[in-house]
Amino acid sequence: MPLIVQKYGGTSVANPDRIANVANRVIKGVMDGNKMVVVLSAMAGETDRLINLAKELSDPPDPRELDVLLATGEQVTVSLFSMYLRSQGVDATSLLGHQARIYTDRAYGRARIIGIDTGRIREELKKGRVVTVAGFQGVDEVGNITTLGRGGSDTTAVAVAAALKADLCEIYTDVEGVYTTDPRVYERARLLDKISYDEMLEMASLGAKVLEIRSVGFAKQYRVPLRVRSTFSDHPGTLVCMEDDDMEAIPVSGVAFSRNEARVSITRVPDRPGIAVRFFEPVAAANIVVDLIIQNTSIDGLADITFTVPKSDLAKTLEIVRNVAREVGAGEVHSDEKIAKISIVGVGMRNNAGIASRMFNALAQAGINIMMISTSEIKISCVIEDKYTELAVRVLHDAFGLETPPPKR
Amino acid sequence: MPLIVQKYGGTSVANPDRIANVANRVIKGVMDGNKMVVVLSAMAGETDRLINLAKELSDPPDPRELDVLLATGEQVTVSLFSMYLRSQGVDATSLLGHQARIYTDRAYGRARIIGIDTGRIREELKKGRVVTVAGFQGVDEVGNITTLGRGGSDTTAVAVAAALKADLCEIYTDVEGVYTTDPRVYERARLLDKISYDEMLEMASLGAKVLEIRSVGFAKQYRVPLRVRSTFSDHPGTLVCMEDDDMEAIPVSGVAFSRNEARVSITRVPDRPGIAVRFFEPVAAANIVVDLIIQNTSIDGLADITFTVPKSDLAKTLEIVRNVAREVGAGEVHSDEKIAKISIVGVGMRNNAGIASRMFNALAQAGINIMMISTSEIKISCVIEDKYTELAVRVLHDAFGLETPPPKR
Repeated sequence: MPLIVQKYGGTSVANPDRIANVANRVIKGVMDGNKMVVVLSAMAGETDRLINLAKELSDPPDPRELDVLLATGEQVTVSLFSMYLRSQGVDATSLLGHQARIYTDRAYGRARIIGIDTGRIREELKKGRVVTVAGFQGVDEVGNITTLGRGGSDTTAVAVAAALKADLCEIYTDVEGVYTTDPRVYERARLLDKISYDEMLEMASLGAKVLEIRSVGFAKQYRVPLRVRSTFSDHPGTLVCMEDDDMEAIPVSGVAFSRNEARVSITRVPDRPGIAVRFFEPVAAANIVVDLIIQNTSIDGLADITFTVPKSDLAKTLEIVRNVAREVGAGEVHSDEKIAKISIVGVGMRNNAGIASRMFNALAQAGINIMMISTSEIKISCVIEDKYTELAVRVLHDAFGLETPPPKR
Repeated sequence: MPLIVQKYGGTSVANPDRIANVANRVIKGVMDGNKMVVVLSAMAGETDRLINLAKELSDPPDPRELDVLLATGEQVTVSLFSMYLRSQGVDATSLLGHQARIYTDRAYGRARIIGIDTGRIREELKKGRVVTVAGFQGVDEVGNITTLGRGGSDTTAVAVAAALKADLCEIYTDVEGVYTTDPRVYERARLLDKISYDEMLEMASLGAKVLEIRSVGFAKQYRVPLRVRSTFSDHPGTLVCMEDDDMEAIPVSGVAFSRNEARVSITRVPDRPGIAVRFFEPVAAANIVVDLIIQNTSIDGLADITFTVPKSDLAKTLEIVRNVAREVGAGEVHSDEKIAKISIVGVGMRNNAGIASRMFNALAQAGINIMMISTSEIKISCVIEDKYTELAVRVLHDAFGLETPPPKR
């Protein structure tokens, strides 16, 4: 009997009508002869409502207590979901993080799953029940409630699927699957039949919002076949899986973009060994993630250093960097929030020379200036002016022919 | 260091402002050098909101899943409460039913506490923390969430106080304490300094709503001193404790009333042995609690049987009784919902003759007809027409001089 783990996000369970609608999909899975585990998020808007309530009493709220509070969101949906299934004659039981024995570390608000004891889940499945599991939450070794952070229900679903060695993990969401790029930005975006874990990881980290990045990492590590599909249609969506020959034949699978970063430049930095560390060490110590870095050395022994950080960390970064610049006798510190990062991703890139130059050419022909470049084995990212974001997406999508499905092999 | 358990009801934690207000009272307790455990209800209205949500999906909702849903109400208040305390520099931690290890049977919706493992609570107290415990909820032996039924937070508080051998259990509510009768019915009602467990048990079972009856039974069993007082004033309220000489000197401590019952009469019942059982056995089998019973035997070998049941069970009762009446060849079945039960309660009654006749006289002089009578060692109840309820309360309150505080001894 196949075992399927399904995960439904907040918009899919936003109200009683939608819960009933989604539950009927689960019932179909049962009728088709599957064992079913259903991981649920909180109703859309509920987590924000709870955070606002907390902030009325304490800002910032204590992390441990905030997790206790937020965990109620998923507790509400799993109980409602299970009682609906039972009212339809389908035996079901809800399990919260501690009942499903999803063990995490104690990093409240961003806990990591360290193990799942599947005893109770298996016991309920053996009784022929649908098991609804509260997403997003776990429990530490002494029973404190923890949450996994935004998007954590995806991680719960994949981790539960991995622990149960499920045949498939389906992530239901409000889009049809994974597209070659955001269809709201380019109408020619094509829904992908499948994509490799590595490509999906890059896409997620580069700004695609369809899947939470940790869940993809988990799926890759445990080789859980992942299907991303829509709650509101019957389209099979996109399979995220191990890469195969088909995928390697395609140089570029998708175009991703992000407007979440800002650029910081320091001019006329004395060019001596260890000078970069002086800047980046205190930035890292402040838990700020630096993405692209460029250092141009000039003839007079002075260098320009440019890098990007999340926009939300820009103010803090500038404070740190200006202090260091004064100490080391550098020139000026500039920043620019009007930038975007455009990336192309594809495992086929490894075997295809000239992909980078095709990218640069396409952007150049559209009159888009490249400010910074970063590459990895399966992706190339360029920082450009943010007003060119949509244009760049379209140009690159066309340049690599992403609109056309690859030939069947 | 004294250990105090405080319980705050739903109106006391109805919104963030009130939570902060109540928390400041807890902080004062800490500053005064006490160890504090705080048991909280859900915000007023929250439990009803959740029940309505459940009924949109399933009516009646599955009992196990309903308990999972309802338990979120208290989870929200204990987390908010603890984060507020922490923001004020008072170390605090919330514990849910399963974390506080409040073990119950598996009677979802009306579970009984079978034991509390106080290890975790004591551990947190030892760290100098205020412990906030979610009221109303527990966990069965395999970790299923259970709830104790309406008013269950009182029971949680008393059970936790008993298990911890607390010095005092304070029940904070929206009234000043226990009165000689309902002050909304008679403005001369007097706030009692103290009342015995037994009197409080009778008062609660006879319609006084200030304390949940199971919690009083628990307090009596484990001799937990219980103080009922107002969240919104500094009056010390009423102490519920073991009876003492003061209490025994007073024949009547309070007047209680209830309009929740209906009367059922069966005329011309053949008067042979076992005939009453024919009626009451099927009624009991339907889980209907019969209160007062009167049987009048007449000379012609036919009897009239009259009894009271909760109004909410009247329709079901009549259905059962009419069937039996046909079978045994009895006369007619009548019912009357316009009745009230008026009771006087007092441990001093045991040593004072003539209390019953003083009661009957007082009612008679006010022109109030007594339809049924029931007595126990420390209470006398009369069923009357419900339109006389307020009048009867006033007449009896005056007749036994309840407005005047007893002389200090």
